Amino acid sequence: MVALVLEKAHELSLRDIELPTQLGPQDVRIAIHTVGICGSDVHYYEHGAIGPFVVRSPMVLGHEASGTIVECGDEVTNLHVGDRVCMEPGIPDPNSKASRLGIYNLDPAVRFWATPPVHGCLTPFVVHPAAFTFKLPDSVSFAEGAMVEPLAVGMHAANKAKIHPGDLAVVMGAGPIGMVTALSALAGGCSQVVITDVVQEKLALAQTLGPIIPVNVAKQNLVEVVHKLTDGWGADIVFEASGNARSVASVFEPLCPAGRVVFIGMPGAPVALDIVAAQAKEASIETVFRYAHVYPRALALLGSGRLNVKPLITDTFPFQESISAFEYATHMKPTSVKAQIVLPS
Amino acid sequence: MVALVLEKAHELSLRDIELPTQLGPQDVRIAIHTVGICGSDVHYYEHGAIGPFVVRSPMVLGHEASGTIVECGDEVTNLHVGDRVCMEPGIPDPNSKASRLGIYNLDPAVRFWATPPVHGCLTPFVVHPAAFTFKLPDSVSFAEGAMVEPLAVGMHAANKAKIHPGDLAVVMGAGPIGMVTALSALAGGCSQVVITDVVQEKLALAQTLGPIIPVNVAKQNLVEVVHKLTDGWGADIVFEASGNARSVASVFEPLCPAGRVVFIGMPGAPVALDIVAAQAKEASIETVFRYAHVYPRALALLGSGRLNVKPLITDTFPFQESISAFEYATHMKPTSVKAQIVLPS
Amino acid sequence: MVALVLEKAHELSLRDIELPTQLGPQDVRIAIHTVGICGSDVHYYEHGAIGPFVVRSPMVLGHEASGTIVECGDEVTNLHVGDRVCMEPGIPDPNSKASRLGIYNLDPAVRFWATPPVHGCLTPFVVHPAAFTFKLPDSVSFAEGAMVEPLAVGMHAANKAKIHPGDLAVVMGAGPIGMVTALSALAGGCSQVVITDVVQEKLALAQTLGPIIPVNVAKQNLVEVVHKLTDGWGADIVFEASGNARSVASVFEPLCPAGRVVFIGMPGAPVALDIVAAQAKEASIETVFRYAHVYPRALALLGSGRLNVKPLITDTFPFQESISAFEYATHMKPTSVKAQIVLPS
Amino acid sequence: MVALVLEKAHELSLRDIELPTQLGPQDVRIAIHTVGICGSDVHYYEHGAIGPFVVRSPMVLGHEASGTIVECGDEVTNLHVGDRVCMEPGIPDPNSKASRLGIYNLDPAVRFWATPPVHGCLTPFVVHPAAFTFKLPDSVSFAEGAMVEPLAVGMHAANKAKIHPGDLAVVMGAGPIGMVTALSALAGGCSQVVITDVVQEKLALAQTLGPIIPVNVAKQNLVEVVHKLTDGWGADIVFEASGNARSVASVFEPLCPAGRVVFIGMPGAPVALDIVAAQAKEASIETVFRYAHVYPRALALLGSGRLNVKPLITDTFPFQESISAFEYATHMKPTSVKAQIVLPS
Repeated sequence: MVALVLEKAHELSLRDIELPTQLGPQDVRIAIHTVGICGSDVHYYEHGAIGPFVVRSPMVLGHEASGTIVECGDEVTNLHVGDRVCMEPGIPDPNSKASRLGIYNLDPAVRFWATPPVHGCLTPFVVHPAAFTFKLPDSVSFAEGAMVEPLAVGMHAANKAKIHPGDLAVVMGAGPIGMVTALSALAGGCSQVVITDVVQEKLALAQTLGPIIPVNVAKQNLVEVVHKLTDGWGADIVFEASGNARSVASVFEPLCPAGRVVFIGMPGAPVALDIVAAQAKEASIETVFRYAHVYPRALALLGSGRLNVKPLITDTFPFQESISAFEYATHMKPTSVKAQIVLPS
Repeated sequence: MVALVLEKAHELSLRDIELPTQLGPQDVRIAIHTVGICGSDVHYYEHGAIGPFVVRSPMVLGHEASGTIVECGDEVTNLHVGDRVCMEPGIPDPNSKASRLGIYNLDPAVRFWATPPVHGCLTPFVVHPAAFTFKLPDSVSFAEGAMVEPLAVGMHAANKAKIHPGDLAVVMGAGPIGMVTALSALAGGCSQVVITDVVQEKLALAQTLGPIIPVNVAKQNLVEVVHKLTDGWGADIVFEASGNARSVASVFEPLCPAGRVVFIGMPGAPVALDIVAAQAKEASIETVFRYAHVYPRALALLGSGRLNVKPLITDTFPFQESISAFEYATHMKPTSVKAQIVLPS
Repeated sequence: MVALVLEKAHELSLRDIELPTQLGPQDVRIAIHTVGICGSDVHYYEHGAIGPFVVRSPMVLGHEASGTIVECGDEVTNLHVGDRVCMEPGIPDPNSKASRLGIYNLDPAVRFWATPPVHGCLTPFVVHPAAFTFKLPDSVSFAEGAMVEPLAVGMHAANKAKIHPGDLAVVMGAGPIGMVTALSALAGGCSQVVITDVVQEKLALAQTLGPIIPVNVAKQNLVEVVHKLTDGWGADIVFEASGNARSVASVFEPLCPAGRVVFIGMPGAPVALDIVAAQAKEASIETVFRYAHVYPRALALLGSGRLNVKPLITDTFPFQESISAFEYATHMKPTSVKAQIVLPS
Repeated sequence: MVALVLEKAHELSLRDIELPTQLGPQDVRIAIHTVGICGSDVHYYEHGAIGPFVVRSPMVLGHEASGTIVECGDEVTNLHVGDRVCMEPGIPDPNSKASRLGIYNLDPAVRFWATPPVHGCLTPFVVHPAAFTFKLPDSVSFAEGAMVEPLAVGMHAANKAKIHPGDLAVVMGAGPIGMVTALSALAGGCSQVVITDVVQEKLALAQTLGPIIPVNVAKQNLVEVVHKLTDGWGADIVFEASGNARSVASVFEPLCPAGRVVFIGMPGAPVALDIVAAQAKEASIETVFRYAHVYPRALALLGSGRLNVKPLITDTFPFQESISAFEYATHMKPTSVKAQIVLPS
């Protein structure tokens, strides 16, 4: 089957490759429609590895996907041929301790698309467990369906933040994950979001997405802005979505007493945190790893219109231009958020 | 000072009455602008009592109010003359055990406007603690400010429901409290709300407020509707806002496994609940009494536009027609939701 | 294989019966050592059914068991031949939605020992999934191991009660489940437990188990006792473990503001609950169905000595006297709590 | 009134000093019986300051106290002359936002005994608000009553840790706060505690207090010990009670997936934390500042015998030898935990 194959760092091919095609009784076969390009795909392309995950043999890229079911295993009851769907890219062992506890994202046995040695989904057909395949509401397009994967990261963070309706949140970082986190925070009950970055174009886009207040931390003082908005009390929640060490170290500053912090961004090295400053506010800190149980919730919010990711889909490429798409994504304009690849129908 | 006085059941006067006017150091004096008419005001008017609370001497009505600060006590720092505000009508003892625990609404010593023997606020000026007086955002009108009190009931219920972003909720009852609960559930993270009633006009109005699906339980089967929406799983949350015994008894039917129920409506007598049916789903049940810590959150959501109560304000009367307003409210049309009285400026 | 077979209501045989013996790769084979007799076993014996679960063909009884592993499937890594173990009697479908969410006890597909048509474990050997088989700490006897099943019900209730260290709990009902709930409440952080019943002998036994205050509700006023202990504030938690309608209806009376109720007992019919009384205290109510994720925790507490079930094991019978044991259990003395059957080694 | 006065760093006097004696209507007057010496008292003695809190004028030391009520204000109803009591040393403003929210320990206006410029309680009589004065159960001695203050720190941490019954906890640091945290963790539901230190005498003492496993991290590998106890899963909770930078940096290592960390110890400088390691486990982190709402709970556990602090009271001095007591406390033996001063009756 033809697929976008990462041969090794810096070398992509659109070529035939042997991929598993056997359909188990609880699996579905999906004709892929749209695949988003994630920062991790780009990182494998540029570096051939992310931390301990090294691309040692050719690997199909892509894990943000939507498509149409073309075949169902014998025991599949909740999905049907012709259903428009999106897919969770990580498949845990259902019998692991983590899965039994409901925290399947923490199962060390998870097999995740386009994480070596597991192939991704930039190919016309994939086989996937029905349990991790989700029907799109009629009002949700394939393009939006392929946005559910990155959105799920923000949704999971919003869920972990235990938002109380009316909370004010800070989101540090206006990259794609910062953006979906801001949208998730609002959909999840926040009254408004203060978003930070140093790139004015990203902040300008963020500002159009809802009651989102941009703060360019190269020029403005975040704590002052937050204190002005909250009469000196502080933000109920700080989502750190940049991974930038300076941001990570500053999360307690704009926070209110008994506030919550969620670390989403992954800093490249340990970061010195002021524990005593956190204690003075009795800060609660959550850390997140991918997501669990979020897809149906994200789709429900997209379907009802309470959350809108369309403004984030800024660039679309046909499958045959996949390699150009990756070139583009490697040197993304500040006004671009998400590039997607559409497969031939 | 002139005020709308309930002399006894069925007898209202707009007349002078002696009211406390002394301003403590932590108090503010407020020129009242708008006062909503609540079902409880109407109930006192019609029956002279609500349960153990009996109107034994003339009492000023009204507890849903907004206005403008005209004087501040010496120790007040967070409010200023000229601030547009709304007020929490219940004042607890700050030194009670309940207050210290943060559950001041459960303090038995609470003094609540227009709950005998405490006077309400249908009068040009009131004195109120600054701690229970909240500045309106610029974009929030006096009329909306006077809606914060009933909205707070729905917001408190939504808060207690521990909504996970994307939940589907059922709200039983499309009266004013059902409506604000539906709005609060959406603002608090629900993807959509199924609302029930037997009055088609109320359902028709509810449907215009957002992704709210009306179910006329005189004609439709709620469980079927919910199962269709959720693939047979059930609703994440059921808010019972009608107080109707049959509704109360049915809360577990549309609920999903491990779902949550919030009892807001107050049935007139004990209701037979099927505990075993609740156990089979491990239902969690919350019960609410008024609200606590909700006003700033409600105002934040109104101010940012994430929640809109304007469509619920259906009728407005001038202060001098207060008695007619109560007559009107006693025999409300099904298309009316909230009647308000505006004081002369 | 020989087993204690319920032929139909009132008819037990100790006879050979065909039972599944095939060992899957993730299964273990266990030589059963001890099996406790549960109220549900007795109920099937006396009535041939519990609600919708009807014994239509001969069924082996017993689901509270401990034993020794005699064979391990190929993929089993965490258990070994010779390990002393106890077993969770309910096996869910690991791929169900409920299991994926971590609430496997609510999976409608659960197969539960001695619940028709599933055979129980009163037989010398059983095959069981390793994932639901738990190693006994060295200090925990087989008799205690066979107590983990009923204990798990109390532990699950204690877990759901979200005990804050130092809480005072009421446990309504001093039967076996009331007893294990009281022990679990103490082990889970309660400072003391008030236990109620009308049988003085049960209360007398309960009193010996720890800081447990007996209240004979035929003679004493529970609310007065609780108010005296709590300076009028009320109990933090009420566990209803009797299923008695009058008890169920009274759960809000001894409760403190913002207190929690857990319904464990299963009343035979719906019970009229005073919702308004619950609201006045903002009571939170949890309902429980069996248990999930509790076995390792129960074993840890037994192993460290923080929880002691030995005083509850009042009667022991050899396997060949199983029928007499059931006769005995059907007409239990008030000083008996748990009867167990020991299989020949 | 005579008192133990810290004149400045290194200079203590037992001398007369003017102290407030006026009794408000909601206050009680207490004859002090026992006062424990806290590390913070010793720190003020040695350094004249703790961070921003500088002793600029003579200050009475002591904040861990018990005594007997000798006079009650007019509005005090829950306490009586002759009651044996202990006292919370921090008094918040009941009208602050933090207090209203129930997090009075985070009120910046808290006045805390022996924190400059507020005098402590090493003096025969003090006046204190009744709301922060707690009756000792009959079975709790004055010495134990004076232990409630440090115990409250551990209890607050245990409360924040949301212990599930049967959890395994690690406590890092076997100083006085580590010890009371270990006891609180066990009383709060943990099955056992692994405690770490580098001083063998402290570990030896800790081991006698319950199911507490000592690990000398100078010689043993904590992660190996925890993995052996938990079959490789990890500890449910890690309490960091040492403040040691290396300990703080290592909290995620022994932790299980979805485990909880509580930072109690206050490191002297920011500590580099491996956020990515925390994320891989979705660690939740709580930070604590003193305590709130804990005294009655601590007393309930002491009173019922579920928690025993007596072994921690290792040294007792009469009031007239207070200065020697501080000398002693400044150079404490590793086998000493808590030194207390007893006032003349």
